[in-house]
Amino acid sequence: MNNLLSESIQQITGQLKNWRRDFHHFAESGWFEFRTATIVAEELHRLGYSLKMGQEVIKADARMGLPSAQALQDQEQRAIKQGALTAWLPHFSGGFTGIVATLDTGKPGPTLAFRVDMDALDQNEEQTPAHRPYADGFSSCNAHMMHACGHDGHTAIGLGLANVLKKHESQLIGKIKLIFQPAEEGTRGAKSMVEAGVVDDVDCFIAIHIGLGVPQGELACGSDNFLATSKIDVTYCGVASHAGGKPEEGKNALLAAAQAALGLYAIPHHSKGSSRINVGVLQAGIGRNVIPDHALMKVETRGETNEINEFVYNQALNIIAGAAKMQGVEYKLELMGAAQSSQPSPRWVDFIYQQARQYVPELSSVVRSRKQPAGSEDATYFMERVKENGGQATYLIFGSELSAGHHNERFDFDENVMTTAVKTLATIAFHLSDFEG
Amino acid sequence: MNNLLSESIQQITGQLKNWRRDFHHFAESGWFEFRTATIVAEELHRLGYSLKMGQEVIKADARMGLPSAQALQDQEQRAIKQGALTAWLPHFSGGFTGIVATLDTGKPGPTLAFRVDMDALDQNEEQTPAHRPYADGFSSCNAHMMHACGHDGHTAIGLGLANVLKKHESQLIGKIKLIFQPAEEGTRGAKSMVEAGVVDDVDCFIAIHIGLGVPQGELACGSDNFLATSKIDVTYCGVASHAGGKPEEGKNALLAAAQAALGLYAIPHHSKGSSRINVGVLQAGIGRNVIPDHALMKVETRGETNEINEFVYNQALNIIAGAAKMQGVEYKLELMGAAQSSQPSPRWVDFIYQQARQYVPELSSVVRSRKQPAGSEDATYFMERVKENGGQATYLIFGSELSAGHHNERFDFDENVMTTAVKTLATIAFHLSDFEG
Amino acid sequence: MNNLLSESIQQITGQLKNWRRDFHHFAESGWFEFRTATIVAEELHRLGYSLKMGQEVIKADARMGLPSAQALQDQEQRAIKQGALTAWLPHFSGGFTGIVATLDTGKPGPTLAFRVDMDALDQNEEQTPAHRPYADGFSSCNAHMMHACGHDGHTAIGLGLANVLKKHESQLIGKIKLIFQPAEEGTRGAKSMVEAGVVDDVDCFIAIHIGLGVPQGELACGSDNFLATSKIDVTYCGVASHAGGKPEEGKNALLAAAQAALGLYAIPHHSKGSSRINVGVLQAGIGRNVIPDHALMKVETRGETNEINEFVYNQALNIIAGAAKMQGVEYKLELMGAAQSSQPSPRWVDFIYQQARQYVPELSSVVRSRKQPAGSEDATYFMERVKENGGQATYLIFGSELSAGHHNERFDFDENVMTTAVKTLATIAFHLSDFEG
Amino acid sequence: MNNLLSESIQQITGQLKNWRRDFHHFAESGWFEFRTATIVAEELHRLGYSLKMGQEVIKADARMGLPSAQALQDQEQRAIKQGALTAWLPHFSGGFTGIVATLDTGKPGPTLAFRVDMDALDQNEEQTPAHRPYADGFSSCNAHMMHACGHDGHTAIGLGLANVLKKHESQLIGKIKLIFQPAEEGTRGAKSMVEAGVVDDVDCFIAIHIGLGVPQGELACGSDNFLATSKIDVTYCGVASHAGGKPEEGKNALLAAAQAALGLYAIPHHSKGSSRINVGVLQAGIGRNVIPDHALMKVETRGETNEINEFVYNQALNIIAGAAKMQGVEYKLELMGAAQSSQPSPRWVDFIYQQARQYVPELSSVVRSRKQPAGSEDATYFMERVKENGGQATYLIFGSELSAGHHNERFDFDENVMTTAVKTLATIAFHLSDFEG
Repeated sequence: MNNLLSESIQQITGQLKNWRRDFHHFAESGWFEFRTATIVAEELHRLGYSLKMGQEVIKADARMGLPSAQALQDQEQRAIKQGALTAWLPHFSGGFTGIVATLDTGKPGPTLAFRVDMDALDQNEEQTPAHRPYADGFSSCNAHMMHACGHDGHTAIGLGLANVLKKHESQLIGKIKLIFQPAEEGTRGAKSMVEAGVVDDVDCFIAIHIGLGVPQGELACGSDNFLATSKIDVTYCGVASHAGGKPEEGKNALLAAAQAALGLYAIPHHSKGSSRINVGVLQAGIGRNVIPDHALMKVETRGETNEINEFVYNQALNIIAGAAKMQGVEYKLELMGAAQSSQPSPRWVDFIYQQARQYVPELSSVVRSRKQPAGSEDATYFMERVKENGGQATYLIFGSELSAGHHNERFDFDENVMTTAVKTLATIAFHLSDFEG
Repeated sequence: MNNLLSESIQQITGQLKNWRRDFHHFAESGWFEFRTATIVAEELHRLGYSLKMGQEVIKADARMGLPSAQALQDQEQRAIKQGALTAWLPHFSGGFTGIVATLDTGKPGPTLAFRVDMDALDQNEEQTPAHRPYADGFSSCNAHMMHACGHDGHTAIGLGLANVLKKHESQLIGKIKLIFQPAEEGTRGAKSMVEAGVVDDVDCFIAIHIGLGVPQGELACGSDNFLATSKIDVTYCGVASHAGGKPEEGKNALLAAAQAALGLYAIPHHSKGSSRINVGVLQAGIGRNVIPDHALMKVETRGETNEINEFVYNQALNIIAGAAKMQGVEYKLELMGAAQSSQPSPRWVDFIYQQARQYVPELSSVVRSRKQPAGSEDATYFMERVKENGGQATYLIFGSELSAGHHNERFDFDENVMTTAVKTLATIAFHLSDFEG
Repeated sequence: MNNLLSESIQQITGQLKNWRRDFHHFAESGWFEFRTATIVAEELHRLGYSLKMGQEVIKADARMGLPSAQALQDQEQRAIKQGALTAWLPHFSGGFTGIVATLDTGKPGPTLAFRVDMDALDQNEEQTPAHRPYADGFSSCNAHMMHACGHDGHTAIGLGLANVLKKHESQLIGKIKLIFQPAEEGTRGAKSMVEAGVVDDVDCFIAIHIGLGVPQGELACGSDNFLATSKIDVTYCGVASHAGGKPEEGKNALLAAAQAALGLYAIPHHSKGSSRINVGVLQAGIGRNVIPDHALMKVETRGETNEINEFVYNQALNIIAGAAKMQGVEYKLELMGAAQSSQPSPRWVDFIYQQARQYVPELSSVVRSRKQPAGSEDATYFMERVKENGGQATYLIFGSELSAGHHNERFDFDENVMTTAVKTLATIAFHLSDFEG
Repeated sequence: MNNLLSESIQQITGQLKNWRRDFHHFAESGWFEFRTATIVAEELHRLGYSLKMGQEVIKADARMGLPSAQALQDQEQRAIKQGALTAWLPHFSGGFTGIVATLDTGKPGPTLAFRVDMDALDQNEEQTPAHRPYADGFSSCNAHMMHACGHDGHTAIGLGLANVLKKHESQLIGKIKLIFQPAEEGTRGAKSMVEAGVVDDVDCFIAIHIGLGVPQGELACGSDNFLATSKIDVTYCGVASHAGGKPEEGKNALLAAAQAALGLYAIPHHSKGSSRINVGVLQAGIGRNVIPDHALMKVETRGETNEINEFVYNQALNIIAGAAKMQGVEYKLELMGAAQSSQPSPRWVDFIYQQARQYVPELSSVVRSRKQPAGSEDATYFMERVKENGGQATYLIFGSELSAGHHNERFDFDENVMTTAVKTLATIAFHLSDFEG
């Protein structure tokens, strides 16, 4: 089997690169993955997977940080111009850019799910010859959108895995589910797929990422330090008045925001672990001589555990409300993103660790976990749901050399990591019968 | 009449001084005027005035800044030891130390009321030979109580006036009411007398003060710049916890108070006139390593008009409540004092101005009004009530040289001002039929 | 003389309207008055006035709130396209858009100066038929620039006055100076002309405004309640860092600004009169998950007197500096505008009052002063300088019905006010020998 | 040897209890341990130890949180009345209540030091029969002083150990140093002994505590989670003024403290580990109508490592200084206490772990370390100094059942723990030659 597998993977190496570079060039940020999703759907359909798409796999009101209806429409038009396959587009229209592809082997066995994400970031890409994507002609052609985190590679890996698994379908048991998620950046998309029930039948779950500081050639089988997080936009709405002539008629939204910002940063530390709070953006007022009637704060809470993040979040809600009360202004809260903390399942990590060491010699190093800088990832929603139902879940990181850090305008990765990832993930699928779940 | 009057006043000059020095020596601060009130009552009764006292003239729950029941009891005992006339004491027991004496001439005519206050301040008096009250043996014998504002003189003037009016009762018309008020300091007592209806039948009203920056020998007939004010004690009550071990279990009352203090000072200015806000005292927390669960703020609002003060006060209420909400703590508000702004009645001021110029040669100067530093006075409650009922009201200031400013530990005044005041007030009463109200 | 004057004014009424509408259509905001200034210069030159322009009358580094060099260049190009007279343009290039025209009668006598301002506001104009300037085809053709305060009328009045005075030059004594000032909005321009010495030789000074709440047909001869003001832009510059990964490496500019904003609003009230403080705009941070390294505050202080404004301003400087210290961030202050309070000269006001009542029957009412809402005006710089040198100065307001308040997008005025203003100002000039300065 | 040791310890069991109860009854809080120190000195002297005391072992200006000279004098007088041995008192007078007793065996070998602390807490003790110290007649007779942390037991253990070691001196090698430290509460005393050089010659160091949540019968050989800490008193000194009359003349210390408090709680979290900040006490102002000219804050910083605590402390200094600048007030900082974090030496912990398991059967459990709630301990100063010099250091906790938590008014411990502690410590001393340092 392993030889056959290696051969199959060999055959799709070029295709992996083509997909990745195509997605990179036509980078689409969260909830705008219209072109990407149609290409993914077409390929999975071609391979014979059974597809669920759009509102079947995304719960509308569980989407967070959704762009305006106008922006969604504009970007869909942009996607059409850039070659989106229009036959598939209606499924994704309006910001429902998710796909779940199922391969039912007909044999008894567990349901194994793989999740990849498809969205780019809201930033410009470096456009100079020193940046390989530019030199090789595949840097982003969309302003303010760039694959600076590697999700283009993740999507390509998902398609490559779909090919290999289908090709050797007879070696598989149970069911395989391939989940293509929108809007991971800002941790906005996973919850809507989980609430649509996408992993309710899943026994074994794997999410992946490339890079993240893991050395080239290494696999971390159970990344365990994602912080739970909440992203909130707070809007204060007061009453403007002339600051010289009628100061008493104003309701000062800027002052409410300033009070809130101070209160937020002063939220108590938690004895059970790390927490974070940030007011990353504050924009208030329109004129020097007008009592400011409007303020916007972009806030983010984090916690080492869900409990700690909830503590910070609940404190924040009180502070935000209290500051409004102090200045007699109205306020509005919008949840723009959220993720959980989640511990990988130990036995599942062990199994993957053993399989990777034994069957994937391309990996120069396999480790169980690796302390990373404190970030957040909404794959944790899938992991927590699977574990709640008694399943096994983990998060794999495939190491790669990077040309610059994630979210940097010069970010790029070593494309060989995609082949290694497909091989590793396929290996786990083919040996799943050895896992005592 | 004027000669007779001058003669009568001559006869009580010594007595005015005796009264004043007795009250000064046994200084009693607000709601503790037990000894003073019994002496006042005895003298008015002796003269033949009809008396109402205690709960007849003070509405219990309209009293502000009342000391504890224990303190009231202790001070009543202290008063007994210092010669309070125990026959009258039951009327005043429990903090009801007000008296209204009425002289009904039986003749038709308006009801004319004079109001004086009786309370000392909560402060120690200078006890050195350079301070005349000490040198002459009448400085306060009560710790933390001192007549440093001249109310001892006001009470003496009230008694002197009672004597003179009674002696020449046949020259009077209508009714005379003499109001002896407790707890003017902190503007705590007037409201309770007004709410008991004490001036509901009054047509012409005069409150008086000595000193206040008016030059020796001058009378200001219509002081018009008292600020409306509210005095609030704010208590925040949170939850203590170990700041190192369990910071997340605390509810931080100190932080709520700090937020509130900042918010209070930031209350908008008012385009219609001056306002003031002060957090004069903040006491919070018990130990360095404990999240503070308790905080007390002593707050004061002021406004050039009642409307402005209410604006500031209402803003303050929101700020105080909002800060509690921010930190998840409980709070309690206690109104410790209040006064209004009040404009004197122009025709009444004019009448007094004419009378004083014509009949009181002892006054070297008579003016209608005089800009004073911004203070507050709860006689304004009486004034506003009288004016609401269609009556006439004003506030007279009798100038005096002072040995030191009001509320200073070396405060003293020129006792001759008392004779002049009695003569002026009596003159107004005797000529009242000339006033076209 | 009066008949002759009336006739002359009659002749230019149409021209006043043409000028006004031309300036209105090609509205130019502060320091961008390139087209306007060339037209003014051409007309004054045509009439035979002696001109000083640009850097001769504007001290470069005393200009406040100057736009960027790029914006100045762009707007100069725009002005050329819109018909600026290029022969005059070099004088004004780079933001030196001021003119002083002198008429020396050769006769002995005082120097009398009139000041008008030429700039529009940074706002869009209503473009609907209900708005007369739009209906009549002279609404602003420049985005974000609109004459919504009447300075288009002031400039026209200045030119009309120049015509009439020149025509009857023989009736004049001493010297006449006509000052055309840029950038009054935001109180940015006057100081630079005063520091260039423009009024150092002036004995009698008049600044004018139309509208401002004064009723149609009324003249207020000595407006006396402009607030002293300072406009400051505060920039905090900290250090960005990832809010989740390295919070301790950040220097939080947003937090500094929030602390400063609270501190600024909490500046004490002043016992000598009104004061104001406003933080009208606060913009900080770039991303939700980044410690904000940049914050901008647009701040404004005001005071009933220069002393009070300076008190507020100095307090503000401490607060701004202290907040920077608290968060370890750098800060930069830029003075964007300033004006003074200034009392008109009583005898000069009286003279104008008498002249206007006697010789300008078009005025249905003449008053000495009129309480206005609290605004600021940088003509006060001229007034203070003239008075310092022993001269006489005042500020005239010509009442007009307005279609909407000043600074409103539908602002318009009754153009007849221009004729009345020219007549009044010329009358003063022609009778100046009657003034005993 | 072990049998001899057990026998010796048997003989002093009663004495341990007597000492402990005597110290408990005459509880003396930090820097006031006059009576305690004289009794300790007398006993150590009687046994033949060589003593250094007072300023020989305490660096005067490294003492933190020292009471006033008056209080020191008063308490020394109190100690005399309660039986302090006056011959020894001069050494300790003025707050120098530390002792170091040395036993030089004359044989080669390392210097082994034991440190105990002697001070009580500033709190009242429960005085009811349910509280054993009260029932048995040895509860504190000193108001506001109580041994609620077990230091009375520590001092008794030190004396018991001194007895046993001296008795079997021939079994020892090198030198033994017994350190009796004042003022551990508030982490105020250790630094002054370390700076006096008390452990500069020490090779092996042990500090001890009883209780702290370790179960009865258990020994933790290397407690490793004390937080580094700094205790600061901050005093703001402004200018008072009448809040109504002259608000602009005040410099508001309360406002500075409120700004600082908010800033302090908002100090960034640290990515390398836990930190804490608390403003435990804030007292400001004297009267409701006075701009507050004085404020006191009791502040505490903590960090999981010295680096983190220093980060928090340095941020705090900026915030405190910046808030003073904002309000134009002066400020004063006083370091009232400090402690470090310190990791125990692994080999030394191992050695003690082996010895205790082998030779002290009284211990039902021996562990290397135990996660405790986050507190601070200034023995860490000794540990860090010893380790800097290449020595070995650790912190031992002897478990005990407690009647109530540390610092509770009903705190009491099982006195048997003292015997076990003496035996364990003596065992380590007698087997020291087995340690390969």
